[in-house]
Amino acid sequence: MSLASLFDNKRVHEFCFESKALNELSFTNHSMSTKPRLHLYPNDKVNVEVRPFEIVERKGFGHPDSITDALGVLISSNYSSYTLREFGSILHHNIDKITISGGVAKPEWGGGEIIEPIDVIFVGKAIREVEIDGKRSLIPIYPLAEDAVHQVFQKVAPKSLVNLSTKEVKPGSHDLITVVSDRVNSAPKANDTSFATSWAPLSKLETLVLEVERFLNGEYKKETRALGTDIKIMGRRFNGTIELNIAAAFLSSELNSKYEYFAELDKLQVAVSERFNIPQEQIFVNTADDREKDSYYITVTGTSLEQGDDGQIGRGNRIRGVIAPYRPQTLEATAGKNPNSHVGNFYNVWASLIADKIYDELGVMNNVALLS
Amino acid sequence: MSLASLFDNKRVHEFCFESKALNELSFTNHSMSTKPRLHLYPNDKVNVEVRPFEIVERKGFGHPDSITDALGVLISSNYSSYTLREFGSILHHNIDKITISGGVAKPEWGGGEIIEPIDVIFVGKAIREVEIDGKRSLIPIYPLAEDAVHQVFQKVAPKSLVNLSTKEVKPGSHDLITVVSDRVNSAPKANDTSFATSWAPLSKLETLVLEVERFLNGEYKKETRALGTDIKIMGRRFNGTIELNIAAAFLSSELNSKYEYFAELDKLQVAVSERFNIPQEQIFVNTADDREKDSYYITVTGTSLEQGDDGQIGRGNRIRGVIAPYRPQTLEATAGKNPNSHVGNFYNVWASLIADKIYDELGVMNNVALLS
Amino acid sequence: MSLASLFDNKRVHEFCFESKALNELSFTNHSMSTKPRLHLYPNDKVNVEVRPFEIVERKGFGHPDSITDALGVLISSNYSSYTLREFGSILHHNIDKITISGGVAKPEWGGGEIIEPIDVIFVGKAIREVEIDGKRSLIPIYPLAEDAVHQVFQKVAPKSLVNLSTKEVKPGSHDLITVVSDRVNSAPKANDTSFATSWAPLSKLETLVLEVERFLNGEYKKETRALGTDIKIMGRRFNGTIELNIAAAFLSSELNSKYEYFAELDKLQVAVSERFNIPQEQIFVNTADDREKDSYYITVTGTSLEQGDDGQIGRGNRIRGVIAPYRPQTLEATAGKNPNSHVGNFYNVWASLIADKIYDELGVMNNVALLS
Amino acid sequence: MSLASLFDNKRVHEFCFESKALNELSFTNHSMSTKPRLHLYPNDKVNVEVRPFEIVERKGFGHPDSITDALGVLISSNYSSYTLREFGSILHHNIDKITISGGVAKPEWGGGEIIEPIDVIFVGKAIREVEIDGKRSLIPIYPLAEDAVHQVFQKVAPKSLVNLSTKEVKPGSHDLITVVSDRVNSAPKANDTSFATSWAPLSKLETLVLEVERFLNGEYKKETRALGTDIKIMGRRFNGTIELNIAAAFLSSELNSKYEYFAELDKLQVAVSERFNIPQEQIFVNTADDREKDSYYITVTGTSLEQGDDGQIGRGNRIRGVIAPYRPQTLEATAGKNPNSHVGNFYNVWASLIADKIYDELGVMNNVALLS
Repeated sequence: MSLASLFDNKRVHEFCFESKALNELSFTNHSMSTKPRLHLYPNDKVNVEVRPFEIVERKGFGHPDSITDALGVLISSNYSSYTLREFGSILHHNIDKITISGGVAKPEWGGGEIIEPIDVIFVGKAIREVEIDGKRSLIPIYPLAEDAVHQVFQKVAPKSLVNLSTKEVKPGSHDLITVVSDRVNSAPKANDTSFATSWAPLSKLETLVLEVERFLNGEYKKETRALGTDIKIMGRRFNGTIELNIAAAFLSSELNSKYEYFAELDKLQVAVSERFNIPQEQIFVNTADDREKDSYYITVTGTSLEQGDDGQIGRGNRIRGVIAPYRPQTLEATAGKNPNSHVGNFYNVWASLIADKIYDELGVMNNVALLS
Repeated sequence: MSLASLFDNKRVHEFCFESKALNELSFTNHSMSTKPRLHLYPNDKVNVEVRPFEIVERKGFGHPDSITDALGVLISSNYSSYTLREFGSILHHNIDKITISGGVAKPEWGGGEIIEPIDVIFVGKAIREVEIDGKRSLIPIYPLAEDAVHQVFQKVAPKSLVNLSTKEVKPGSHDLITVVSDRVNSAPKANDTSFATSWAPLSKLETLVLEVERFLNGEYKKETRALGTDIKIMGRRFNGTIELNIAAAFLSSELNSKYEYFAELDKLQVAVSERFNIPQEQIFVNTADDREKDSYYITVTGTSLEQGDDGQIGRGNRIRGVIAPYRPQTLEATAGKNPNSHVGNFYNVWASLIADKIYDELGVMNNVALLS
Repeated sequence: MSLASLFDNKRVHEFCFESKALNELSFTNHSMSTKPRLHLYPNDKVNVEVRPFEIVERKGFGHPDSITDALGVLISSNYSSYTLREFGSILHHNIDKITISGGVAKPEWGGGEIIEPIDVIFVGKAIREVEIDGKRSLIPIYPLAEDAVHQVFQKVAPKSLVNLSTKEVKPGSHDLITVVSDRVNSAPKANDTSFATSWAPLSKLETLVLEVERFLNGEYKKETRALGTDIKIMGRRFNGTIELNIAAAFLSSELNSKYEYFAELDKLQVAVSERFNIPQEQIFVNTADDREKDSYYITVTGTSLEQGDDGQIGRGNRIRGVIAPYRPQTLEATAGKNPNSHVGNFYNVWASLIADKIYDELGVMNNVALLS
Repeated sequence: MSLASLFDNKRVHEFCFESKALNELSFTNHSMSTKPRLHLYPNDKVNVEVRPFEIVERKGFGHPDSITDALGVLISSNYSSYTLREFGSILHHNIDKITISGGVAKPEWGGGEIIEPIDVIFVGKAIREVEIDGKRSLIPIYPLAEDAVHQVFQKVAPKSLVNLSTKEVKPGSHDLITVVSDRVNSAPKANDTSFATSWAPLSKLETLVLEVERFLNGEYKKETRALGTDIKIMGRRFNGTIELNIAAAFLSSELNSKYEYFAELDKLQVAVSERFNIPQEQIFVNTADDREKDSYYITVTGTSLEQGDDGQIGRGNRIRGVIAPYRPQTLEATAGKNPNSHVGNFYNVWASLIADKIYDELGVMNNVALLS
């Protein structure tokens, strides 16, 4: 096996990595160079499976926080593609403070109506005008953002009414206009003292939570028109016993009465129980419903955003697809940031790739931390 | 000693807590009651000091993310006080998606000018109109928010120009108006499946990072007019060696040249070194400066917000005053939420109080997790 | 002839109208009743044709001010229809401060691109929540506004990118919620001391300016794909000589070069000249073009809104379809106002109907003024 | 007498003015030069005093529309002064679509409270960044606007809570940045086919309405602490009889009961009657009050803006200080526009100066029209 293969790509050849055997790792001799440093932890320190208690959460792609993260990824991707194509270089941008202010809707059995729109507010910095060889060009931030909004909502909640604001995407602190010449071909550079972490492999509970959401939002949904995309799975393990809490938005237009809704809840519980071999009494679906007050989790569009829930970037699933409080984790949001210069973006991905390789090739459970 | 004393207050009398000795804790017999459950971990599992690598960050009170969190706490506090005084009950509110879009300023040696304001955007849900005994009253959200903004910026950056938007604070999903009668005296209830964590005691590095920021933003600042409030400390430990990265905003109006600025950097480095007994070569101040390009960390107001840095709630220091990626942590923001109903707010505080008591009275290092 | 026929409809039966012969009208005995009063002026006082100088303007339906007025009319109409259907009564609304902030576009021969959207801001007051028999309903202001925006832009500039804000449509000064019961069947009431005017017949210049715009935006456009909808006609008469200034937006996507554009200008000038029998040298088209600087009136969407021109309600054509500074005119905007209660809306229409009838039936040139 | 003296200033030496005697004016030989042309009308055509009916309105300086116009004038003046001082030239700006969305307040006898702020929205175009000799500078639009807001509200309603938005002040259609060199010393140029009118002298009713508002907002207010600044005078003349409608906002904090308020209404009516020698029964004060419903015109700040009334530029008093529907008038707003290039601004002032001079020196009643 060759760990060196991890570092073939010239972008990581500077990583310092010093160890004799992977389960007795020493650390780099840290001079204050700007080189990223890689730290690995061996099995027994990182095995969450031996903890008596574990909690893991996954927010489905229609959850407000997932939508917000997806918007961040797409606006950054759209911006990067545009500037790469037009100017030969990914220009600086950090549109990483996206907030969604939920709307107002009135779901009704067999129908429903939207009253107020969902407000999407992009906040951040991006170069908005460039000058190359004396010629100036404006970068169409709004159309790029609108395209991101369209793509995301088309997938998660096509019936939504969305209001978009990009007024808080400002040029950086210096000039409104940027001369591009000196940026072309410049090497990516970390723009802050930052820190990224990942790990491999996923624990049993992490894997389960991930798979349940994918099953419900994938295969299961194909035969269940009434299920929305805003599905949140919260898994807990006390010693060997696992419990799942599932909060799933349903579509009021596809349900003609509360009895049809109750039947859907039962059907979902049974399906998860059978597929993942978990006793039904350990699976709880939409426990926030209040049957006495006739309050159920039904929606017009399939996401709670329509009813006032808000989303904010950086609160969605972390790099491995789940939120795992007992794993090392940073608070930085990765979505929306310049992939070229922001360690929180680029390094998080690399940390995961490295963690996977180490596990795949060496069978060593590991945490990886990268510092810029 | 009496752990029972933790639970004297009736608000926590429902916590389940089962253990024989604290270093061999068993767990609650988890029926799906809605009771919160307390879990403790004994020493050897929670001691980050034995890890070879540790990283801890603290954002001073003038840091954009700290400002945002402070605004969240204050707007919630103002709202709670107002509704308690006027209506006898803390009404429902979750103004917990606060975003600050930085402004534009032009610092110059010996002066400087503000070009564009800092935009503060409050996003969330709050009851805006109530009806008691047939009489309706509007709740003055904007004045309450303006008071919060005034208090915070008066303290951290009095020269700032701030533009406030509360338009995204909407009533909840049901009615614009709320009949208050049935809320008075209602018991606090967790409004979501949530999870809070804390720990005690702080590690050496956590304590150091906390103290350095307090020293600089307190005692040290009294004699150093040129230092702003936006100070970020990043501490790292590799085995026994600690390094500190300090990013500190300075006030351009108090510095007549870059040479005065360089002198301030040296003075700060020496002061921290002497006070905390750390070799100077392990303390790095404003390393993002680029002297070749005459680019320094100087500001008109003392915070980087003026120059386009953005702040977002939930990215500031966590409950113990630091950001510690190797501690169990949730992603929920606590600032801005209804203290009465949101587990992320109320339980986080309780988790810390419990952790402290256990350590103080039993000398046991511990992590505490509360589930609703 | 029977002028009384004007007053058959009970809604105007209170109008005071006292005269023996129409060319020696006396005035009402004005007690301070709240009754509307009608005043007529005979021929010789109102004939603008005898003035040596006359100026008349008409803004085509794609002009920013016309678009704004159209939005005001439609949002009011949508709101009225909705509340009439749902609650049996047209509820109070004055969404009469509509502002459009133009976008940014980059037209290019044979194509073009939109960079920033057009911002439409609805400002005003409207009832947003009602209570009937204890049941509350929200009125979907945003969807009603969005429908208005869609309808208008679909007609005038389908390629536009429009961003809509209804956040400034607030409930009135009292309550957020309104109990509707006592409004049903209430008689319309003027809500301010107001004043409306009109006249008949149109002068020759007024008629010409009106007809030229209709011709260009109608019959002529059917055969001229390159012509946009933003057409403004300014007519002047010095004694007997008439001049027309025509500013017409063209579509860059339909023109492959400036030479094709010049050909269109000539073609348009000839068409107007022939149709209306005016010498070509008295017709001026797009005189603001600057051929030396290659600056032409070409657009991506057909309206100058895309390029930063702004529109504001109340600056469009007045009640008779033209802007005629030598006619009595009020400054009130009529678009967007509650047709049921606002004199500026309702009375302006009635003033015109009365003026027309008087001219049609009696052949008397007249100005009509209505006071509430 | 020398009319030529009107044209001493080189800025108007191009005006064409051809007449033998002022009461038999001929008109310019209108070639399509871009020269402004001056037209005068002799006495008998312009004397509104001979009309049987006349209506005149004046909005006091605390009226929403007056506040909006004042903001437009001041923001333009601030911008002009700044760019003249910094760059040697008044740069292009048309911040002429200002809208104020009224707030919410709760006046109470002897006090009162503000609930929601007044929103001021500046919409328009202005150069925001300039480049001189390769050096770029940002123009501080927001601080300039904030200064305008502060000055205006300090004068008309110091207790107001005002929220300011300048996000809709965009650069023009071409570049975000402007190279200033070629603008310095450039001659003012009309940027559109525009038209300005004025007249002299004021009619008796126009003079009266003007004087009554000045009296109430000046001398009378000094002794009447309870009177606000939002005073609107509507005067009507039927043949020889004049009536005045006065709508005046009062301050709730200065009135302890409705009886004190009624006394103020009477006092005001008497004062106007005595000062201007008009019978009391022809003066009507706050007729929109509804005593049965206890609805009075009282405010916390002295202007109806606080209670939801909205203001929009261009609906305030016209150039002569009144709104006179029977005078020739344009619809263009003059406030907020570039005084250097916009005919609607510059020419309106000149039209009035010329009209005054002609009347002062020749005693000729006249209308003046200027065309660009």
